[in-house]
Amino acid sequence: MKKILAFDIGGTKIAYAIIDENGNFTNEIIKVTTPKTSAGIYDLLETVIKGLEDRIDGIAIATAGAINNENNKIISHVGNLPEKYNELDFLSLSTKPILLENDANAAGWAEFKMGAAKGTKNAVILTLGTGVGSGIIVDGKLLKGKSGSAGEMHVRFGFGQERKCTCGLWDCLETYVSGNALTTDAKLYMSTDATSYDVIRGLKDNNQKAQAAFEHWQSCLENALVMVGNLFDPEVIVLSGSMAQFVEYEKLNNQVNKDILTQPLVLKLAKFENNAGMLGAALLLLEKL
Amino acid sequence: MKKILAFDIGGTKIAYAIIDENGNFTNEIIKVTTPKTSAGIYDLLETVIKGLEDRIDGIAIATAGAINNENNKIISHVGNLPEKYNELDFLSLSTKPILLENDANAAGWAEFKMGAAKGTKNAVILTLGTGVGSGIIVDGKLLKGKSGSAGEMHVRFGFGQERKCTCGLWDCLETYVSGNALTTDAKLYMSTDATSYDVIRGLKDNNQKAQAAFEHWQSCLENALVMVGNLFDPEVIVLSGSMAQFVEYEKLNNQVNKDILTQPLVLKLAKFENNAGMLGAALLLLEKL
Repeated sequence: MKKILAFDIGGTKIAYAIIDENGNFTNEIIKVTTPKTSAGIYDLLETVIKGLEDRIDGIAIATAGAINNENNKIISHVGNLPEKYNELDFLSLSTKPILLENDANAAGWAEFKMGAAKGTKNAVILTLGTGVGSGIIVDGKLLKGKSGSAGEMHVRFGFGQERKCTCGLWDCLETYVSGNALTTDAKLYMSTDATSYDVIRGLKDNNQKAQAAFEHWQSCLENALVMVGNLFDPEVIVLSGSMAQFVEYEKLNNQVNKDILTQPLVLKLAKFENNAGMLGAALLLLEKL
Repeated sequence: MKKILAFDIGGTKIAYAIIDENGNFTNEIIKVTTPKTSAGIYDLLETVIKGLEDRIDGIAIATAGAINNENNKIISHVGNLPEKYNELDFLSLSTKPILLENDANAAGWAEFKMGAAKGTKNAVILTLGTGVGSGIIVDGKLLKGKSGSAGEMHVRFGFGQERKCTCGLWDCLETYVSGNALTTDAKLYMSTDATSYDVIRGLKDNNQKAQAAFEHWQSCLENALVMVGNLFDPEVIVLSGSMAQFVEYEKLNNQVNKDILTQPLVLKLAKFENNAGMLGAALLLLEKL
């Protein structure tokens, strides 16, 4: 049975595990702190790969950043990783097959192949974490666009200058429906030092200000879901990431289906949590072997 | 050489022509007023088809409304055509092959195969007319979604209730970047009885209020183009429809490429005008014969 060494490279942690061709994690998932330099990251990957190389058929890497259509190169800047990380020559890490994919795309692929979007052909997986990522499945394939960077959820919601986005523009979707966005709403509706955690705690205590903050956040999410429904006509929209667990699925599902012009869709919570990126990258590589 | 009888069915006119497999219109394009009942439309189509049936290999119909993935049925309501138009049994019109496609999708396909997006694999064609339509090409295929209605450009730009959209929601893209949207801007920046025509005339006369109205309209269009660029990472965005000729392409192209996170794209004016729908529908059918 084929086995893939899968990595998930994030700004704070690097996780890795061996995944077999059925999508099972065959050993424990190891997590280490992300080295502070890109050379340090390269050395870490190399050391791990050297130690496991004789047991695996390939290496799959889920990472922040846009990945080209050949799945071997980062083609964008990657804000929360060290300088020149995007210039690393990942292919030189091993003579075994190596595949890179954007972490949100990889997580989306895992949900599509084995998770909440299994059995569909058209699905959108939104990752609501600190920011917002997406994996978009069109007719059974990942939407990559001409260069591989399709699915950037930077769509302006508004014409003013209310919320500055990490992309440099104002009022992108990300500034309204991410974890950071809920912190913005916490400050607007609760107090200037409140965060998303205070909103979540407040919901449990029936705090009205927390409820107002959450309602606003969720109504913005509804706008985003209507956009996704109208543009892509997916069978299912899957929500993943740290914020996904707080969403009122039935209520939002009904409202979205009332508002879209396309045919009914289903809103679902993701099946996989933090390991979806590794799993999806491994499954993508297995299809190519 | 194969020949297709192609129709374009709109709320005011029905156009038809015979198109050969090279995409050439082999005779004059005939235009007739759209009958006031759906039975009247059916009878008209039947009469035209009967008269030409022995000279053609199939019938292609570009029409308002969302078309299913089998290209044989309208699956949405069609506002500007008679009641029950969407229930017509188009397949019973002839024993020759019949294909239906949404008019904006068909026009997009014509631009993709023979027009401004020729030679690309990922392109978005926006039709800026009374409303806004789209034909989205992903990896060389029309984006249709699960049911065929993908590409509905109903994305809310704003959270208030500024401009009511035909879809029932507020402040959709269509209310900011269509011909009707320019009339809204004309009323805001010029006078309460001004229309989009006054803006266009005013631009020629260097009327400052007209310029302000147009600037606002074009800045909203820029938002729409950044959205399309970030979501689909296309090689080219093509603008068609009655408003497309007024756009400042070089200026907007530069601004969009400054603002997107994806790789550079090219903004272009469509090659084909009103006949793109017939041509695209014919080309789609020719691929299936």
